[in-house]
Amino acid sequence: MPTETTLSGSDIDRAFTVLFNLRDGKSPSQPSTKRYLAGVKEMFVDPAAADRILEKENPLVYEFHELGIPSDPGDLAFGTSITNPGKVAGEYYMTKGHFHQILETAEVYYCIQGHGMMMMESPEGQWDCQELTPGKAVYVPKRFGHRSINIGKNPFITFFCFRADAGHDYKTIEAKGFHKIVVEKDGETTIIDNPRWK
Amino acid sequence: MPTETTLSGSDIDRAFTVLFNLRDGKSPSQPSTKRYLAGVKEMFVDPAAADRILEKENPLVYEFHELGIPSDPGDLAFGTSITNPGKVAGEYYMTKGHFHQILETAEVYYCIQGHGMMMMESPEGQWDCQELTPGKAVYVPKRFGHRSINIGKNPFITFFCFRADAGHDYKTIEAKGFHKIVVEKDGETTIIDNPRWK
Repeated sequence: MPTETTLSGSDIDRAFTVLFNLRDGKSPSQPSTKRYLAGVKEMFVDPAAADRILEKENPLVYEFHELGIPSDPGDLAFGTSITNPGKVAGEYYMTKGHFHQILETAEVYYCIQGHGMMMMESPEGQWDCQELTPGKAVYVPKRFGHRSINIGKNPFITFFCFRADAGHDYKTIEAKGFHKIVVEKDGETTIIDNPRWK
Repeated sequence: MPTETTLSGSDIDRAFTVLFNLRDGKSPSQPSTKRYLAGVKEMFVDPAAADRILEKENPLVYEFHELGIPSDPGDLAFGTSITNPGKVAGEYYMTKGHFHQILETAEVYYCIQGHGMMMMESPEGQWDCQELTPGKAVYVPKRFGHRSINIGKNPFITFFCFRADAGHDYKTIEAKGFHKIVVEKDGETTIIDNPRWK
């Protein structure tokens, strides 16, 4: 099919398409950033339980595909997030989670596969947690750090979009954790206080 | 599953989820805006051909589900666009198309069903057209008006996201049209000059 572009100038003044497979979330053109258990074990309440898993294997906890969109307030960054099923001492596999460096920017996640939760928390300690299944979009309000958590048996996959200049602050959550964590307890998915929250 | 929010204040400081069905694009909670042929026949090159269809029926050309997100540069609006299959004198069913009132804002469309094209055009007359199939996301650059076109046999459905204050300018395209249109010609999908472009 014929297409034509006559643009030149800044990095991102041309239209383009990117494939993010609806079944597995993968993009053949955009390499993913992968987080294996050994690199993220400290985000779990019980890192010693993670060490026991790591004696046998170093599973992939999550990965995400994204684009190098320049940091411009008129632009949008987008991609897919894939969190694998699994638990560390009952605590479900999850992403590190992040605030936006520009706190007053929202984010949208559209669930395309799996069963998960979006845990959210503001710097003032307000929190919310929303359940996601395929077809559900979650609106993450401005100011809310957020983390994807897989509470199902298959990969939990979302398509995400945020303002391209929002930026990522991972350090606040690495240092403090979230107020709440999600665990399987007596066979039920349960939100409990994070005993390690600082 | 327990959830808790402790927020109050502005209209949109709470997280929420909305279902946009991945098979048909419909949202049970968000009523859609519907565009029937009688209301949009003038966007086609041959409105007389549309009149001949309208003697028998007034088909739904497209609809979209969206949210009432307040116009804030840190917020995102999102929803689904559903363009039905069909043609008027060979020209495929499509949306009216729009520029953003804040021209310097991009948009992202993620195709979840069907086969379509995103036609794009800047105020300076630069244009681009990108083909979409399920799993493909199209980046619509800042400054580019854009229109969804269904070139397949089933509904063409996308999940879209844009900065909540971007605004919609429909009038420019209503008055001028796009430089290019997409038609079926000798059984092939073809991009041609719009003979009615002003």
